Amino acid sequence: MEFNHVHKSKKRVDVYEKVTGRAKYGADMRFPDMLYAQTLYTKYPYAEIKNIDLGSAQKQNDVEAIITAEDVPNNKFGVIIENQQVLAEDKSLFIGDGIAVVAAKTAKAAGRAVELIDVQYKELKGVYDSLEARKEGSQLIHEENESNQVIHHPLRKGNVKQGFLESDVIIKREYDTPFIEQSYIEPEAVVAVPYQENSTITIYGSIQNPFATQEAVASVLKEKLNKVRIVQNHMGGSFGGKDEVVSSMAARAAILALKTEKPVRLVNTRDQSIKESYKRHPYKMKYKIGATHDGRLKAMQIEAVADSGAYACQTPFVTWRSVVQATGPYEVENVKTDTYGFYTNNIYTGAMRGYGSPQVIFAQESLMDELAEELDMDPVQLRLKNIYHNNSITASGQKLDSHQVSLKEVLTKAVEKSDFIEKYNRYKKEQPGDKKRGIGLSISFRGCSLGAEAIDAAGIILSLKKDGSVNLYSGLAENGQGLKTVYCQMAGEILGLDIDRINFMEVDTLISPDSGSTVASRATLIGGNAVKKAANNLANRIKKFIAERYEQTEGDIVLKDGTIYGKKDIEIMSIAEMSSKAAMEGVYLTSYGWYVSPEISWDEETGQGNPYFTYVYGCQVAEVEVDIKTGEISVLKMTAAHDVGRAINPANVKGQIYGGVMMGLGYGIMEELKTNQGYIQNTNFDEYLIPTVKDMPDIDPIIVENPDPDGPFGAKSIGEPTLELGAAAIANAVANATDKRIRSLPINLEQIIVGRKLSKGGE
Amino acid sequence: MEFNHVHKSKKRVDVYEKVTGRAKYGADMRFPDMLYAQTLYTKYPYAEIKNIDLGSAQKQNDVEAIITAEDVPNNKFGVIIENQQVLAEDKSLFIGDGIAVVAAKTAKAAGRAVELIDVQYKELKGVYDSLEARKEGSQLIHEENESNQVIHHPLRKGNVKQGFLESDVIIKREYDTPFIEQSYIEPEAVVAVPYQENSTITIYGSIQNPFATQEAVASVLKEKLNKVRIVQNHMGGSFGGKDEVVSSMAARAAILALKTEKPVRLVNTRDQSIKESYKRHPYKMKYKIGATHDGRLKAMQIEAVADSGAYACQTPFVTWRSVVQATGPYEVENVKTDTYGFYTNNIYTGAMRGYGSPQVIFAQESLMDELAEELDMDPVQLRLKNIYHNNSITASGQKLDSHQVSLKEVLTKAVEKSDFIEKYNRYKKEQPGDKKRGIGLSISFRGCSLGAEAIDAAGIILSLKKDGSVNLYSGLAENGQGLKTVYCQMAGEILGLDIDRINFMEVDTLISPDSGSTVASRATLIGGNAVKKAANNLANRIKKFIAERYEQTEGDIVLKDGTIYGKKDIEIMSIAEMSSKAAMEGVYLTSYGWYVSPEISWDEETGQGNPYFTYVYGCQVAEVEVDIKTGEISVLKMTAAHDVGRAINPANVKGQIYGGVMMGLGYGIMEELKTNQGYIQNTNFDEYLIPTVKDMPDIDPIIVENPDPDGPFGAKSIGEPTLELGAAAIANAVANATDKRIRSLPINLEQIIVGRKLSKGGE
Repeated sequence: MEFNHVHKSKKRVDVYEKVTGRAKYGADMRFPDMLYAQTLYTKYPYAEIKNIDLGSAQKQNDVEAIITAEDVPNNKFGVIIENQQVLAEDKSLFIGDGIAVVAAKTAKAAGRAVELIDVQYKELKGVYDSLEARKEGSQLIHEENESNQVIHHPLRKGNVKQGFLESDVIIKREYDTPFIEQSYIEPEAVVAVPYQENSTITIYGSIQNPFATQEAVASVLKEKLNKVRIVQNHMGGSFGGKDEVVSSMAARAAILALKTEKPVRLVNTRDQSIKESYKRHPYKMKYKIGATHDGRLKAMQIEAVADSGAYACQTPFVTWRSVVQATGPYEVENVKTDTYGFYTNNIYTGAMRGYGSPQVIFAQESLMDELAEELDMDPVQLRLKNIYHNNSITASGQKLDSHQVSLKEVLTKAVEKSDFIEKYNRYKKEQPGDKKRGIGLSISFRGCSLGAEAIDAAGIILSLKKDGSVNLYSGLAENGQGLKTVYCQMAGEILGLDIDRINFMEVDTLISPDSGSTVASRATLIGGNAVKKAANNLANRIKKFIAERYEQTEGDIVLKDGTIYGKKDIEIMSIAEMSSKAAMEGVYLTSYGWYVSPEISWDEETGQGNPYFTYVYGCQVAEVEVDIKTGEISVLKMTAAHDVGRAINPANVKGQIYGGVMMGLGYGIMEELKTNQGYIQNTNFDEYLIPTVKDMPDIDPIIVENPDPDGPFGAKSIGEPTLELGAAAIANAVANATDKRIRSLPINLEQIIVGRKLSKGGE
Repeated sequence: MEFNHVHKSKKRVDVYEKVTGRAKYGADMRFPDMLYAQTLYTKYPYAEIKNIDLGSAQKQNDVEAIITAEDVPNNKFGVIIENQQVLAEDKSLFIGDGIAVVAAKTAKAAGRAVELIDVQYKELKGVYDSLEARKEGSQLIHEENESNQVIHHPLRKGNVKQGFLESDVIIKREYDTPFIEQSYIEPEAVVAVPYQENSTITIYGSIQNPFATQEAVASVLKEKLNKVRIVQNHMGGSFGGKDEVVSSMAARAAILALKTEKPVRLVNTRDQSIKESYKRHPYKMKYKIGATHDGRLKAMQIEAVADSGAYACQTPFVTWRSVVQATGPYEVENVKTDTYGFYTNNIYTGAMRGYGSPQVIFAQESLMDELAEELDMDPVQLRLKNIYHNNSITASGQKLDSHQVSLKEVLTKAVEKSDFIEKYNRYKKEQPGDKKRGIGLSISFRGCSLGAEAIDAAGIILSLKKDGSVNLYSGLAENGQGLKTVYCQMAGEILGLDIDRINFMEVDTLISPDSGSTVASRATLIGGNAVKKAANNLANRIKKFIAERYEQTEGDIVLKDGTIYGKKDIEIMSIAEMSSKAAMEGVYLTSYGWYVSPEISWDEETGQGNPYFTYVYGCQVAEVEVDIKTGEISVLKMTAAHDVGRAINPANVKGQIYGGVMMGLGYGIMEELKTNQGYIQNTNFDEYLIPTVKDMPDIDPIIVENPDPDGPFGAKSIGEPTLELGAAAIANAVANATDKRIRSLPINLEQIIVGRKLSKGGE
């Protein structure tokens, strides 16, 4: 198929405003009389709040208002379970809970006032371990509940008892992963403006999910949705992280703005961001797997326990994705998995790129190498023997028959391109010196979009102006990933217009069709289908207009290069000319596209159903060098093969791969938010280490394309699959290099030096 | 028919924000780093600009930029003929032409700098009279043209020569009217903000026609339409006046904003407003009318000459409306009218409430009384004998068969309610003392909406939120007239929702469907039909959703009081609950309504056709007291009967009548923008007199309702008909009181004292 605008590495449409600094981020928003807000956080992770004395703080110069829980019309919010406090009321439940927020004429005055607020606490004994929280009789974090359990997702398929009986080899392993910070460049920022135009409150900011924020703020303020307006600014990254925490900040700023009748700015420092914003869930996982001598998987039993921290946030959904991906992309007749989330007094956890998959993939793909070792097979062979192919039945009982299952293809391409087999065998042998090289791989299947978590629908509006320029209104947002360019390419393809004629409007709840959140690697797939619908709708109306007036049949009309061609390729007129004529005749050329994904299903009791309507497949190979004396690990090269259906913008796809690989690398060997009794110990990037450009390996992205029948132009997803594979691949490479199996992330120096020997024969 | 929300005097939806001062007007808009702009106007109405020296002005403190014509990318704009200068280039053509605009950090600095700009002019001999401008060989205002004629609209029906031959009585009269200022409370205000969100320029302000301003600014900047955003603020009145002049100011502010990369505010003082903004056209009219002895009209011949001032602006359209209404609502077989517009070096003229009708109705309805006097008939009888009724053929050959022609009804009701006959006869007799009372009336038919001037279409978007609240996006605007309330009532009627659940969004070219301008008393009629379509569309989708899920048939479902009822009036659920359920299922509840008016036609050569698809009818009776010694006229009472089709909000309709009557009163006896050789002599309200509350007569509004088949809920128009009748009614009342016929507006003291005697037997 010939394309003119999609399937090309077009320059980003937002590049100019970004490189010139004209792009406005949340903290760039300024308004006359704007006040600066500052949050007072609790002193203790878990404490009773006995008294709050605002007296001296209120008397400070330039202080205009201070709010506490008393000022919050409805103090509980939450997208799944409404149990998150806007400001701590009777108790603080974690170290990032807010107690009060000051609004003052200057940031300095607000900061001074915060220090003068006198809070009397009664420190309480908290629960800081998910397994502890799970125990009967454990202190209840939310007293209204019967236990600390947030969620339990069972999955039952076949008969695991029988499966293990039929297995020749059984191994059991435990893995665990840490709290992870999303580490977006731009910390959270909101500005709330009261009584602007027709809205009671308008909130600008770095807001990943404007519609969820709108609902949260309306609910907190007890205001109608049509009176709360959220405008998303340019985003300096989000990675799932600017949802609930930003809703909470937006609500606080809104209350202050309405109280003072002035705009209120609330922008976190990095320390505040790390202290207050939710993290990726730490998981504790127990895996048991059984196989025959020849490497056929017979049974898997998995228990995964997620630490939800103080609030439910997205725990029920995050853990649900783990259920679906826990077994990896392998055919196993007998599966039993149990995935849990428990409240603790730790920092709360929620969405982060990967969303429940990086944890289980680290475990599962480490396990596969451990099993291969046990069976004395090479890890590629073991995988090839068991991977999903067309018409495979997944652990949840879904038959993979809607699209090309390309696991073999991504695996083979990555293995060949990285010279995996040769290197794996070479590195396995004894290497001289302290620096040992290793190579490892991991594979995954990943459900695209929200799946059975929630309805998956998105809308696009296209409005053709009289001069042939177009506005594109999207409910899904540019978070930095390149969405604007991709949508403009898709619309341009169908309308025959250059992408510089198409203007992608920032998401604004007042204009944009509520399309849920830009998460779950769904924007290209779900929103792209809406773009296609809207553009086809508009193109058809253009064709109809021409056909009715210029003796043409609609089928002969082609839109290309800004021009309308008729039968025998005769040039009829430019799209600009046609737009102007249509306007003169009162023909309105705005079109809607609304896309609802194909049907999916899920039985929560058994974990059976068709959780996603399509999947993407990926394989990453890591090559490392480990200094066994210092414990230092250098990742030399990452080869990443990802099936994206169709790459609408290959340069953007590569950008996603580079970024995802780097985040996977951080997850594998560097990143860990350390907590101690609920206190966070590394609250800035001097102590919380993320990869820098110096840590960047040679990255070899391999784009695999098997156009999906349900994807716009065949496109699927790429955002999250890129980071879920790195940690396991690196762990396997480290094992290949050092013969040491590390089952706890991040793989650090200490573990390398004193780490456990690669197990032989199960525990 | 039973209504729940329309046909009721609901409280205005915008009352709260207006009375609390929260409503933001153009001049209330403030932005960080905003600059203040000030215009330097030409010194002479007509002059060559030899040199502009900005040197000293530029050196002033706080001055950031100064622009002249050289800085304007495309210096010509205009909605019909593009000949208006953004800034005077080689010549200034009228006294309000801008020469340069300064942007400075303070208004004071801008003002100082303006004074320091040194312009060398060569004064030229201008043309300041439309009849002078008409003469062959007259100085050409626009050198590229062959004459100063902007437009000539002929109308030819029957054979006037024959008609006059068949007449028993023929009279010829001349009437003239002055320049009139729209006199909105709020002078023009714009603020241009560069590079905001995705727009190159965003302009806020008191902008009557955001879409025309968008086109003008885009054209001036040579920018794509989708990069120019216009947001209408609350408006302190417009009355047709905030269109071209605001486009020009918006373009100037935009150029400065892009040059400085800062927001630029350009707000006129009252003096600047009166000097710069276009006026209602002065007309010079010659009427000749022939009738039989028994009062049957046989022929009319009319010549009307409008002064267009320096630019074309809306002259071609304004004069076109005069053509249609020039003969009044009377059956005449033989008609010949010629309506002209000519350029002069006077202030330019454009849209003002009435739009070409107040001038000709003053003439025509004065003429009818003069003819009645001549025929010795009473003015009511003469009118009743000749007025349009159902199936009448108009001067342009249109058969009035689409709606109830209610002239007799409005005339009869006003005459009865005002006790016209008795008073007319009584006052006609000699009255003792200096204070003479009189009563007079006038009637009109008025084409609703734009008519054959331009395509008449409008769009509405309704978006139902998850909590059952609604956003209403309209392309037509609230200018203060009460439109928001009317649209909310209409949508509420169909959706069964209280109007406080519906949020009418300010017009924003980024969101609102381009529906042309809020002019021509078209908003209730044309936009109302779009509201109806959008609301019906949304209601049907709600019904479909319910029918498919709750064993109902769509036909049984009723939306009322926020609740959905099914067969046998069973309550199914609230609309809020339904909205939430729909959102969960990915059903998108936003609907479009796009309305295009019924077909109309016009032959510009003959002035024949169906210029409007429906008409409204009105009659006003004025009762006055004239002090013949001082010349003072007191209007004691105005009785105003108007057929509005259906009054959606009777209180609002009355508001329109009160306001229109007062403007008509000003037109009749007070208002006149005086010019002398192109200079304006009264540039503020101390000298340009408008009626105050002290001049307010007893006003008796009579709402007549004959629901129109093409109107939403039967509604038609009310904005402009209310002011087109007053001047003639007052003139007729003055004649009744004093036996003096004044044919030149305003009727002033001097004319009363030395005015011409009511003519007997024609000139």
